[in-house]
Amino acid sequence: MALFPLTITHTDGAARCGVYHTPHGDVDTPAFMPVGTAGTVKGVTPPQLAGSGAQMILANTYHLQLRPTADVVRELGGLHAFMGWSGPILTDSGGYQVFSLAKISKITDEGVEFRSHIDGAAMSLSPASAVSIQNALGADVIMAFDECPPLPSDGETIARAVRRTVRWAAQCKQCHARSEDQALFGIVQGGLDPDLRRRCAEALVDIEFDGYAVGGLSVGETHEEMISVLGPVISVLPSDRPRYLMGVGMPRDLLAAVQAGVDLFDCVLPTRNGRNSQAFSRTGTLNLRNERYRLDSGPLEADCDCETCGRFSRGYIRHLFNAGEMLGPTLTSIHNLRFYQRFMTRMRELIREGRLARIVTEFPIAAGPAQHQQEESP
Amino acid sequence: MALFPLTITHTDGAARCGVYHTPHGDVDTPAFMPVGTAGTVKGVTPPQLAGSGAQMILANTYHLQLRPTADVVRELGGLHAFMGWSGPILTDSGGYQVFSLAKISKITDEGVEFRSHIDGAAMSLSPASAVSIQNALGADVIMAFDECPPLPSDGETIARAVRRTVRWAAQCKQCHARSEDQALFGIVQGGLDPDLRRRCAEALVDIEFDGYAVGGLSVGETHEEMISVLGPVISVLPSDRPRYLMGVGMPRDLLAAVQAGVDLFDCVLPTRNGRNSQAFSRTGTLNLRNERYRLDSGPLEADCDCETCGRFSRGYIRHLFNAGEMLGPTLTSIHNLRFYQRFMTRMRELIREGRLARIVTEFPIAAGPAQHQQEESP
Repeated sequence: MALFPLTITHTDGAARCGVYHTPHGDVDTPAFMPVGTAGTVKGVTPPQLAGSGAQMILANTYHLQLRPTADVVRELGGLHAFMGWSGPILTDSGGYQVFSLAKISKITDEGVEFRSHIDGAAMSLSPASAVSIQNALGADVIMAFDECPPLPSDGETIARAVRRTVRWAAQCKQCHARSEDQALFGIVQGGLDPDLRRRCAEALVDIEFDGYAVGGLSVGETHEEMISVLGPVISVLPSDRPRYLMGVGMPRDLLAAVQAGVDLFDCVLPTRNGRNSQAFSRTGTLNLRNERYRLDSGPLEADCDCETCGRFSRGYIRHLFNAGEMLGPTLTSIHNLRFYQRFMTRMRELIREGRLARIVTEFPIAAGPAQHQQEESP
Repeated sequence: MALFPLTITHTDGAARCGVYHTPHGDVDTPAFMPVGTAGTVKGVTPPQLAGSGAQMILANTYHLQLRPTADVVRELGGLHAFMGWSGPILTDSGGYQVFSLAKISKITDEGVEFRSHIDGAAMSLSPASAVSIQNALGADVIMAFDECPPLPSDGETIARAVRRTVRWAAQCKQCHARSEDQALFGIVQGGLDPDLRRRCAEALVDIEFDGYAVGGLSVGETHEEMISVLGPVISVLPSDRPRYLMGVGMPRDLLAAVQAGVDLFDCVLPTRNGRNSQAFSRTGTLNLRNERYRLDSGPLEADCDCETCGRFSRGYIRHLFNAGEMLGPTLTSIHNLRFYQRFMTRMRELIREGRLARIVTEFPIAAGPAQHQQEESP
């Protein structure tokens, strides 16, 4: 019996929509979780975040353990109280960050020794410590500690990472001290090898987790490569457990993954791009530093119902970026966060109506090449 | 007849409280105006600003003319629409910024030639252009162009600046193209010489303005020196016109100036100090980077009703500053802006009750030395 029920209400092909019931509230799926790396979704307050329609958010174990440490977060009441967010939270295990941000000193079957990317301090993470830290942080959903090799890696490196990831996942389940109130998800690794991915998923299903994630993607592979491994994995996952594609992605990636049956996503794009003056719209993206917006009195996106579009012009936001004002990143992040939620909401509606494919006519950006910036016509 | 009536409802000694009626709404006086230098009060949205209780704000002509230029602001609907603030706005004339930020090339009786502090571009401001720019920006209250010499300066420099300031003020009134819907205030200069200050004020009163400002202060002089020039100036100002002390200040400065009969203030302190991790409280100031707040689960200030204090702990905000997160400056600015409004609100209440002097028992910070940081006990 999985911790926290997932109710699937409608399907459209492999795509599905429903409700994930957590102790801190219900989450309509497929859901997009904004990323609050260090205990804050950068540049926005929790009310602004809730105003975007976000129901569940992610925080990073690696960053929080570096600063201020999980002990401090626990002393200050746990992650929900700490960051002033009363909705559901998911923490990752730190695996991805250790392998992408930190300088690794040693990887063994016991865990990883590394140096902090902030101050070079010697640290380590193991299945037991990653779970213990997440127990202290107190998110609704926590993740098993995984080995996340870069892509491309040779077959033996990928296969060894899968073996370790499965063994570590079992250890994580074993030492999970809050299995009564924190769901634990296993993470499927296996690079771009569909067979390895499927076998990794099968092994994790045998151990049994409250949900299953697909990790190690969005690390430089193409959209088609990313999507190609989802089918083999999802074919062996139980339909009553949430499926979570980690760190993804552009609207096109989200659509293809939803069509493959994924329920949960997280990505820094809405806020990272917002800080870099890039706004999303249904038809493409806008770079607000562009001279063409100097006298543009229109909103970032016509018909958008966000706080930014209801009050401010492209010309004003361009000025904010040119003048280096904090409000530029904040207002553009607020719009982008709302854009992602509008996109997810519309996908859920179309799944209920059995016509998800129609989304690309309403959101042409979801038909475009992932990672590719399109400047929309003025 | 002054543009925009000021209704004085109560006095307590020289202190007075009332309502300043502008086309964009009423302002309870004495009032504190947060500073939106480049068309944004740094780090906060207009709803957050309104939530602090601020009714009227200031924007800087010098900064807006540099970027994005007054023409762009006018094309985008004027300053209120541009920055999404529907309440009253005051623009300064650029005089103070030219003399404090820019590199001055030449000062003549016609105006000032200078180089932008941003890109070194050659620019100029004159009484006519400063008013014309402010006509384009469209604030409710605009300021005459003044010469603002540094303190200390020799007597002849100060006297010459007064002569120019008075002559320029007359020219500003002459060429004010929107005298039907924008109030024009004259600025009293005169350094720390009470006689010169009084004579400057008399000359401006003879020209007649919609309100009168005291400029050229808060530039390094002591609290006592600053306050000492207010009496001589205010003694010759008409009681039916607003009195505005520019660029001031710490709570102690505000109290002393209110007691001298000042109605309006502006200062960057709540937001600048907020960005630098300093929070105001009734009993002193806190530096949020201090280790002592690491596990402090209390709010920035007990009993504060701001959005920050209702949701976040000192320990969390300390973490945000340590991690370099934008939300730290934003949350601390929100608190400080609210603190200043609570202080002004309470001064107005006490004036109505005829016991303004009592404010120092409720806000001991207002009894303390200006500019001096006091760390409150934990």
